[in-house]
Amino acid sequence: MRKIGLREVEDIALGASLLGAGGGGDPYYGKLMAIGAIKECGPVELISPEEVPDDAIIMPIAMMGAPTVLCEKGTGGDEYRVIYEMVSQYMGKSVYAVMPMEAGGVNSMLPIAAAARLGLPMVDCDGMGRAFPELQMVTFTIGGVSATPMALTDEKGNSAIFNTITNKWTEELARAVTMSCGGSVTVSLYIMEGRTMKAFGVKNIVTRSEQLGRAIRGVKNQEGLTPEEAFLKASEGYGIFKGKIVDVLRETNGKFNIGRIIMEGIGDYRGERAEVTFQNENLTASVNGELRATVPDLICLVDTETFIPVTTEALKYGKRVMVVGLKCYEMWRTEAGLELVSPRYFGVDTDYIPLEERVKGGAENV
Amino acid sequence: MRKIGLREVEDIALGASLLGAGGGGDPYYGKLMAIGAIKECGPVELISPEEVPDDAIIMPIAMMGAPTVLCEKGTGGDEYRVIYEMVSQYMGKSVYAVMPMEAGGVNSMLPIAAAARLGLPMVDCDGMGRAFPELQMVTFTIGGVSATPMALTDEKGNSAIFNTITNKWTEELARAVTMSCGGSVTVSLYIMEGRTMKAFGVKNIVTRSEQLGRAIRGVKNQEGLTPEEAFLKASEGYGIFKGKIVDVLRETNGKFNIGRIIMEGIGDYRGERAEVTFQNENLTASVNGELRATVPDLICLVDTETFIPVTTEALKYGKRVMVVGLKCYEMWRTEAGLELVSPRYFGVDTDYIPLEERVKGGAENV
Repeated sequence: MRKIGLREVEDIALGASLLGAGGGGDPYYGKLMAIGAIKECGPVELISPEEVPDDAIIMPIAMMGAPTVLCEKGTGGDEYRVIYEMVSQYMGKSVYAVMPMEAGGVNSMLPIAAAARLGLPMVDCDGMGRAFPELQMVTFTIGGVSATPMALTDEKGNSAIFNTITNKWTEELARAVTMSCGGSVTVSLYIMEGRTMKAFGVKNIVTRSEQLGRAIRGVKNQEGLTPEEAFLKASEGYGIFKGKIVDVLRETNGKFNIGRIIMEGIGDYRGERAEVTFQNENLTASVNGELRATVPDLICLVDTETFIPVTTEALKYGKRVMVVGLKCYEMWRTEAGLELVSPRYFGVDTDYIPLEERVKGGAENV
Repeated sequence: MRKIGLREVEDIALGASLLGAGGGGDPYYGKLMAIGAIKECGPVELISPEEVPDDAIIMPIAMMGAPTVLCEKGTGGDEYRVIYEMVSQYMGKSVYAVMPMEAGGVNSMLPIAAAARLGLPMVDCDGMGRAFPELQMVTFTIGGVSATPMALTDEKGNSAIFNTITNKWTEELARAVTMSCGGSVTVSLYIMEGRTMKAFGVKNIVTRSEQLGRAIRGVKNQEGLTPEEAFLKASEGYGIFKGKIVDVLRETNGKFNIGRIIMEGIGDYRGERAEVTFQNENLTASVNGELRATVPDLICLVDTETFIPVTTEALKYGKRVMVVGLKCYEMWRTEAGLELVSPRYFGVDTDYIPLEERVKGGAENV
């Protein structure tokens, strides 16, 4: 157990924007919520998965809907209490701790706000190790855990619990209520016992996020290393490309932000050309037409000077970025994991080949 | 306690179509469901409100959505089990009995099917004593009972429980899920303890329905009485008009069936003209421009030969009908009751004057 205070929140938010892999929503508004809750209620206890009893009820916290709506509509502060009471009553047992379901992006921050306001510990674990666009894309699905019972509440105090026959129906019904509630709500899904969390969760991901954030902040102070070397070392990242953005194609198909970014090389990459495609999160990175990384590995764009991650919303002509690949959580690389998040699931016609093999030198053409 | 078998179901369904006051949905499809359930699982125990312990959980059963969709989409048979389990789990206590919330129309039948399939008793009580178009229009609202927690399930097995800040939000969120589920679902709302049911419910309404149904069936066999006299005596009804339908105006405003019926008098009413307006259920009846009955009293149209109730859907040019007024449950006539269901709430610009005073001779022009 250790405490998460204001300083830790800053680092976790920065790390979470890297784990967002271009998507997940900007953690900024979530960070304000976490900071507000900690200032009001005190620091949060972060506990390791091993500290959780097998039969304890763990309540993951996330937002559903458009992050941009969340920013404008805000939250009431009472959502976590409403969800806590509904879940505890439904489960017939008090909730023991909260946890993030998605450590990348804005959803990294809401569980911190919830833990502070409820006076509950937060477990150092999530279900993705990054951000993903669909709710069944969690390691707990591999473990056969249902997304439901799923609890939902809006900032006005309305709430609902769903039990559905498939996760597609969870999505359908919860989405309808989210829309009726104004486009953004707080949810708890994959409510589970401690034993399940320990068996299938991505452990210590909050700590990892915090380390990433701290490393980004400190890249310029590493003796004997250039900032870029320091960044790649700390993030265990693979440098894929460095370039200037020369084109951004972005569209919304009603459900997702989809598009691609074209870059022209700078520095060592002069004369080369790279492309990154995305569906909320970045899906593929290729250099001179050769794939260098695909989902479920993390493809991140960071500023070439500050190494601060750039989300797809912030992409602009002329911006200089480095494309970095991070290995995804090992469970995503298994057959069961790839069933949920393979490149083909996202419409990319290629087998999954681990990042570290792809970057050795392109064996495959796009 | 007494048993409700196939014969009783026939009578209750017929009586319920009278209590539907022109709306509430045709009980026919509901009757098939009740009959199917009784044939499969045996008769239902009907218990009087007084037999229910004060702290027992009572689960009202109804359908939400369009009755016409219910007829086409059907039900899976497992809805009641799903709702029962969700409610029992949420309340932390097993449900003791089911009851109807709306004794008029199709919703009179679904609780019978539920009771048979669940092996639970049904309480001889409802929250309307008739049919009404909006979910807050129940006597339990007068008692300060919230519509939520409200449980909802579709025929596929998806379910949800809502807790909302107002009944308007219940309507909003449950309606969104009902639409996503295909337009018709089974619900339980105003889940309450025995003491509340006894304090605010419309008692013995199932028995009243059954008596009405039996009376309609037997109008031709009452010694010394014409069928019409027998019908009015048994129903405690006030004859308002008898005529031939000469015009029907019907429209749907997306939410309700609204319209009016014009009749030309026959028999004693020759030369007179009457109008009945409706919003799902009949709202007003006037003769020669004078109001003779308004909501919340029941305005029913029945066939002049068989005395079988005619719903607004079945109204046709040339049909001969009698317009009958039935006194509503006394709680509707109180200030608190009229706040929910006064003529003005339905857009009719008149004070509520009890049926029995209006029929004495019209004092007021429409």
